[in-house]
Amino acid sequence: MSLLEKRWNELADVKDELAERDWFMGTSGNLAIKVSDNPLQFLVTASGKDKRKRTDEDFLLVDEFGRPVGDTHLKPSAETLLHVEIYRRTNAGCSLHVHTIDNNIVSEIYGDQGEVKFKGQELIKAFNKWDEDAVLKIPIIHNYAHIPTLAKAFSEHISEDSGAVLIRNHGITVWGKDAFEAKKVLEASEFLFRYQLRLLEHKPYQLFKVV
Amino acid sequence: MSLLEKRWNELADVKDELAERDWFMGTSGNLAIKVSDNPLQFLVTASGKDKRKRTDEDFLLVDEFGRPVGDTHLKPSAETLLHVEIYRRTNAGCSLHVHTIDNNIVSEIYGDQGEVKFKGQELIKAFNKWDEDAVLKIPIIHNYAHIPTLAKAFSEHISEDSGAVLIRNHGITVWGKDAFEAKKVLEASEFLFRYQLRLLEHKPYQLFKVV
Amino acid sequence: MSLLEKRWNELADVKDELAERDWFMGTSGNLAIKVSDNPLQFLVTASGKDKRKRTDEDFLLVDEFGRPVGDTHLKPSAETLLHVEIYRRTNAGCSLHVHTIDNNIVSEIYGDQGEVKFKGQELIKAFNKWDEDAVLKIPIIHNYAHIPTLAKAFSEHISEDSGAVLIRNHGITVWGKDAFEAKKVLEASEFLFRYQLRLLEHKPYQLFKVV
Amino acid sequence: MSLLEKRWNELADVKDELAERDWFMGTSGNLAIKVSDNPLQFLVTASGKDKRKRTDEDFLLVDEFGRPVGDTHLKPSAETLLHVEIYRRTNAGCSLHVHTIDNNIVSEIYGDQGEVKFKGQELIKAFNKWDEDAVLKIPIIHNYAHIPTLAKAFSEHISEDSGAVLIRNHGITVWGKDAFEAKKVLEASEFLFRYQLRLLEHKPYQLFKVV
Repeated sequence: MSLLEKRWNELADVKDELAERDWFMGTSGNLAIKVSDNPLQFLVTASGKDKRKRTDEDFLLVDEFGRPVGDTHLKPSAETLLHVEIYRRTNAGCSLHVHTIDNNIVSEIYGDQGEVKFKGQELIKAFNKWDEDAVLKIPIIHNYAHIPTLAKAFSEHISEDSGAVLIRNHGITVWGKDAFEAKKVLEASEFLFRYQLRLLEHKPYQLFKVV
Repeated sequence: MSLLEKRWNELADVKDELAERDWFMGTSGNLAIKVSDNPLQFLVTASGKDKRKRTDEDFLLVDEFGRPVGDTHLKPSAETLLHVEIYRRTNAGCSLHVHTIDNNIVSEIYGDQGEVKFKGQELIKAFNKWDEDAVLKIPIIHNYAHIPTLAKAFSEHISEDSGAVLIRNHGITVWGKDAFEAKKVLEASEFLFRYQLRLLEHKPYQLFKVV
Repeated sequence: MSLLEKRWNELADVKDELAERDWFMGTSGNLAIKVSDNPLQFLVTASGKDKRKRTDEDFLLVDEFGRPVGDTHLKPSAETLLHVEIYRRTNAGCSLHVHTIDNNIVSEIYGDQGEVKFKGQELIKAFNKWDEDAVLKIPIIHNYAHIPTLAKAFSEHISEDSGAVLIRNHGITVWGKDAFEAKKVLEASEFLFRYQLRLLEHKPYQLFKVV
Repeated sequence: MSLLEKRWNELADVKDELAERDWFMGTSGNLAIKVSDNPLQFLVTASGKDKRKRTDEDFLLVDEFGRPVGDTHLKPSAETLLHVEIYRRTNAGCSLHVHTIDNNIVSEIYGDQGEVKFKGQELIKAFNKWDEDAVLKIPIIHNYAHIPTLAKAFSEHISEDSGAVLIRNHGITVWGKDAFEAKKVLEASEFLFRYQLRLLEHKPYQLFKVV
């Protein structure tokens, strides 16, 4: 099996798993995995496909500008430029963009503050935060309709080889050294978002009850 | 494979997928897919079947009045007239009627206003709303027990080849040029409804906290 | 295939489906299906089994007193007496007892009133309520630890061949003429409970916003 | 099949089932099953694996100090010491540590009180509480980053052969005489936690409405 096939299968497995959770509602979301560094080439989801099906047209290979490599009738996802920024600026090997109710609600509630913070929650260890007082910050950027502008705003928050950025009312983009790491960061983010929202629902009552 | 078989399989695939999400609770819901334009004929779910099972009695062919084509012991869904309205008035190829908790709650909360609006949410692009300021409106109609009256009220909101209408405390009906498009509109609607309800839960707290 | 085998398979299919929804948490729940009227014999879930697995020890045949028919090391579910009441008093062919979060919460919130009512919700049609003004009432009984006492309180609400009773903080028992009908009543009940709870969450906010 | 293989398969089955529920988000959670008493040896999840896949490197055998038995490149889960405490102090045969939103929220809301109590809920019978007035208490301990300190705090709540302890903002650890019992206690705990949270959401409204 070639490296291309290996990466294709890894990405297809991630897609199947996220699709099973209904994390691609309304054909939303897009995924990418790096295949080579020199030249920079990566697989990205083709536009307009049903992500609950597994076919040999789910992904296509693109270059460092997000343009298809070779002849193809497939169109790269409209948001391919965001993946380009990640592979240009870090050593990440996989990046995932997903819309969920939880990440959209968190991005709206904390949007004006430009970030959401987590502290004292075990799951922040998935972001390599091991101290008992460690704080995890996930930035939230404006959802520019113009993709190059969105990509530029996004790029300002990419420096580490693993990370996460929320786009307001649009979803999250995560990345990691490989598919396993990217998925770990995605799942930990979603857990933290849901935890935070549930806590907001319950803490007021608790205060009301105790005071 | 004939066109009839092809459409049957497409609709059966949609049914399987929605059934897996438990979107047909209590035998609710019905689905349709167009097979020919001249004469107008479409497949529609047969009444009283378990939608979690896949059998060769799940659908039957009906004409432009919703009457069975040919001899059959199967009875078309009681709400077949709503699908008739769609195929008569638009070029849609598939239509789906589904009861979920989210669409029922939204239909009740916004029912008196006759519609629910969405703005600034990425998923409205599934309705071909691409501008940053675009507004999506989904009408909400009264749930008349008399189906022809319901179909008439419903028909007043059908003009485009793709769309969605809520029936108060009853569910949503969506349509699109084919099964893929109809499902996309359905999923995007459900995402938006759940998003809206979750936001209503959290915004009060946020205001309370900030002010 | 004998009638016993046929009924066994029908009940096993229902069990598989409910298990997939996680409606048997902590080994809770029990199911029954009638096999013969003269003498009255029905299959009921054996005690202490993992309902996510399908084995030939999942059910056992019991008589009109809930006692095993023939030699067996299997023990009928502790709540078999409730199923006995149903088959003695009605023509029902299948009965299901299930604990869900929604049915437990509804049973507690409306417990002091002794019943929960639904009106103007399409899904009450699953209970054969077709008028636009029809009201569905589901009784809620006290959860007596002593099973014969519980069975007696339960029996006071069994007269129709299809129905549903909530046991406070314990779950719901539904019945219908066959497995298909019993499952329909169960699903419609769960839909209505979740709908009601979600509406309680949102109506206060709406009032707050509008007034 | 050897006893080791038998236990391996039992634990792998539990892992598959919990993974299907998404109870291992972000690679969280760890599981153990006892293989022998003299010397004490048990299987425990290897560190850094994807728990949604079933492989022959998912678990490894460790001794009474949580050290690998024999040569292996696998690393025992960082929290193996907690499982050690259970097998040293009780006759339990299986122990499960799982992070869910519900158990994390309950651990935070009731964390200052050091325990959460349940009464009058049918599911507490899964903890062998059969009286109508029985009270179930689940202790909540501080989430020490230093694992030996955490294990010591944890050990103070282990005396029975079956039980459950919450670690604040970290998850639950349950144990029972075998995999079936441990899973029953886990499921019953999660049911009770979700029930409790939902009740907190609804009781205030009810009071508001009635008073």
